[in-house]
Amino acid sequence: MSRFWSQAAQRCEPYVPGEQLNQPGIIKLNTNENPYSPSPAVVEAIETEAANQLNLYPSPTVDQLRERIADANELTKENVFVGNGSDEVLAFSFMAFFDQGKAIRFPDISYSFYPVYARLFNIPFKSIPLRDDFTIPAEAFFQSDGGVIFPNPNAPTSVYLELEAIKNIANQNPDQVVIIDEAYIDFASGSAVSLIHDYENVLIIQTMSKSRSLAGLRVGYALGNAELISGLTRIKDSFNSYTLDRLAIAGAVEAINASDYYVNITAKIIATREWSFSEMRKRGFTVLPSQANFLFATHASFPAETLYVKLKEAGILIRYFNKPRIENYVRITIGTDKQMQQFFHALDKILSCV
Amino acid sequence: MSRFWSQAAQRCEPYVPGEQLNQPGIIKLNTNENPYSPSPAVVEAIETEAANQLNLYPSPTVDQLRERIADANELTKENVFVGNGSDEVLAFSFMAFFDQGKAIRFPDISYSFYPVYARLFNIPFKSIPLRDDFTIPAEAFFQSDGGVIFPNPNAPTSVYLELEAIKNIANQNPDQVVIIDEAYIDFASGSAVSLIHDYENVLIIQTMSKSRSLAGLRVGYALGNAELISGLTRIKDSFNSYTLDRLAIAGAVEAINASDYYVNITAKIIATREWSFSEMRKRGFTVLPSQANFLFATHASFPAETLYVKLKEAGILIRYFNKPRIENYVRITIGTDKQMQQFFHALDKILSCV
Repeated sequence: MSRFWSQAAQRCEPYVPGEQLNQPGIIKLNTNENPYSPSPAVVEAIETEAANQLNLYPSPTVDQLRERIADANELTKENVFVGNGSDEVLAFSFMAFFDQGKAIRFPDISYSFYPVYARLFNIPFKSIPLRDDFTIPAEAFFQSDGGVIFPNPNAPTSVYLELEAIKNIANQNPDQVVIIDEAYIDFASGSAVSLIHDYENVLIIQTMSKSRSLAGLRVGYALGNAELISGLTRIKDSFNSYTLDRLAIAGAVEAINASDYYVNITAKIIATREWSFSEMRKRGFTVLPSQANFLFATHASFPAETLYVKLKEAGILIRYFNKPRIENYVRITIGTDKQMQQFFHALDKILSCV
Repeated sequence: MSRFWSQAAQRCEPYVPGEQLNQPGIIKLNTNENPYSPSPAVVEAIETEAANQLNLYPSPTVDQLRERIADANELTKENVFVGNGSDEVLAFSFMAFFDQGKAIRFPDISYSFYPVYARLFNIPFKSIPLRDDFTIPAEAFFQSDGGVIFPNPNAPTSVYLELEAIKNIANQNPDQVVIIDEAYIDFASGSAVSLIHDYENVLIIQTMSKSRSLAGLRVGYALGNAELISGLTRIKDSFNSYTLDRLAIAGAVEAINASDYYVNITAKIIATREWSFSEMRKRGFTVLPSQANFLFATHASFPAETLYVKLKEAGILIRYFNKPRIENYVRITIGTDKQMQQFFHALDKILSCV
């Protein structure tokens, strides 16, 4: 604490991201990164742009990228907002659509950045308990005071909510913004993006960090009706005119263009996920049905925290959350087949030493 | 206006950046960019990094870059905060150190983003009139309620404030943060960075957009005592874990390393500025004494707005602010010698047609 800190700086409780160890040879299954490289076309576009006018500001309106994202989603650029990773897009969304004094709702087990944003901006919130099977109880989100936000598929549970339930939530919050955080949607059965044509209160947030293999580039975006997008733009233009650098813009445009490449690696990850799912069950784990690029699992007799520690000792990082209801679960990012084989090899050693 | 917008989204009055025309052949003297390319070592570092693990998140703590910036300023990394351009660092500083209900002070003629931040975060402000010669009246910043912020050299005036005056302001605000926005400091006679050893309330903000030729990369930073830096870090970690992408980090590290290159182009820009200054005066302009990479000038008989319009027609962009006290001034970024010759050629044609 410092006498120079504002009330916001005193009040906030910063998010703690997954460990980013820079140790060579470590297997990172802890931050839901994509194990495959981005498309070579993305790397090439960045290399070209690096040699081309880095001394000049990027476009403040980022029209080219917004147009490409709009095309890919059968929208217009007025429906697209882009930002420095979906975390920044989420932060701007909290600022643009949620207010002090009106409680928003999100699941009790969910992306742990939501309560962090709420505390930073002094927005009250109700955390809504997931059902015992970790599904989202749609009706508990009806008639919110201040708005609704949840990831779909949910994180860290990996569980997917069907479109019909999302429609009900949107219908039952006609004057509030309902934000669907679709960071993992490309690994799932379908996006809610089509809803934005019929629901002016629905905002979809996506990212290039997961399915597009670009966690290191920091590009996220929001899709919604033009009024919501213009609210986001007002906040962004009151905060930082240029949130995406020239290289990120150039790379992201190519990432949209290279959709064949990404469809292919996404299919590989889903195949590895399904195989890993059954391998986990063979070893006595209960695994939630995953529509994401990670598994959320618990073992009847082996404590999750010990598993996390032992795997770390073996050079494999997974994520453990010491939180109520999930303190005996681990979250395991789906790596390559080879990485997952190494994971199961290490896991077998650990389980056999009980 | 939309019924979905928060009070912040309704209240804010977004900043309007200088035009970013993508027309070939246009001469951009309107956003204070550096006319020279970044060091080739920067471009090379980015190209190497682009091919190397863009699928993984960047470092959330950005230690390597903070250490290099610290070394270059005889500080430790605990004294350094880095962000997505100095605009983001400024936004986080408003959040970390300024509070609703306590008025901050900044000059009436200054970086026009300050009132934008203040409105966004609902922070009251007093704008302090510059003297008639556009110098900052230090004593008017003594004993502020909520804190002080000003650029040095000031923008858009280009006028520099001596270190002694800054010390007085810091001394007379012992419990408030005094932010010196040194975006243009490398073109001036000296930074206030040494003050942070003696003044725990002084925060220095710098950028790589101007003297380091990297406006397109979005890297800014703050220097101050560890308590202030940790306040900024708390806000950033409650907003976006990774604000600098891998490419920006790699490029910025090399930009610090390549200081010989930048000393050289800075000297060239200063020489061009001095020559341009006298050329402007020859043509009947009153030009403020500049310690930045731009000139702020007015002509006794030729209206500033007309000059801006006519130069734009001739393919040369300069900046015109339609604001009280400076409505007859133009701001002209210092380009290369060749660009400035083209500028004066166009200017002579315009002035001769009166």
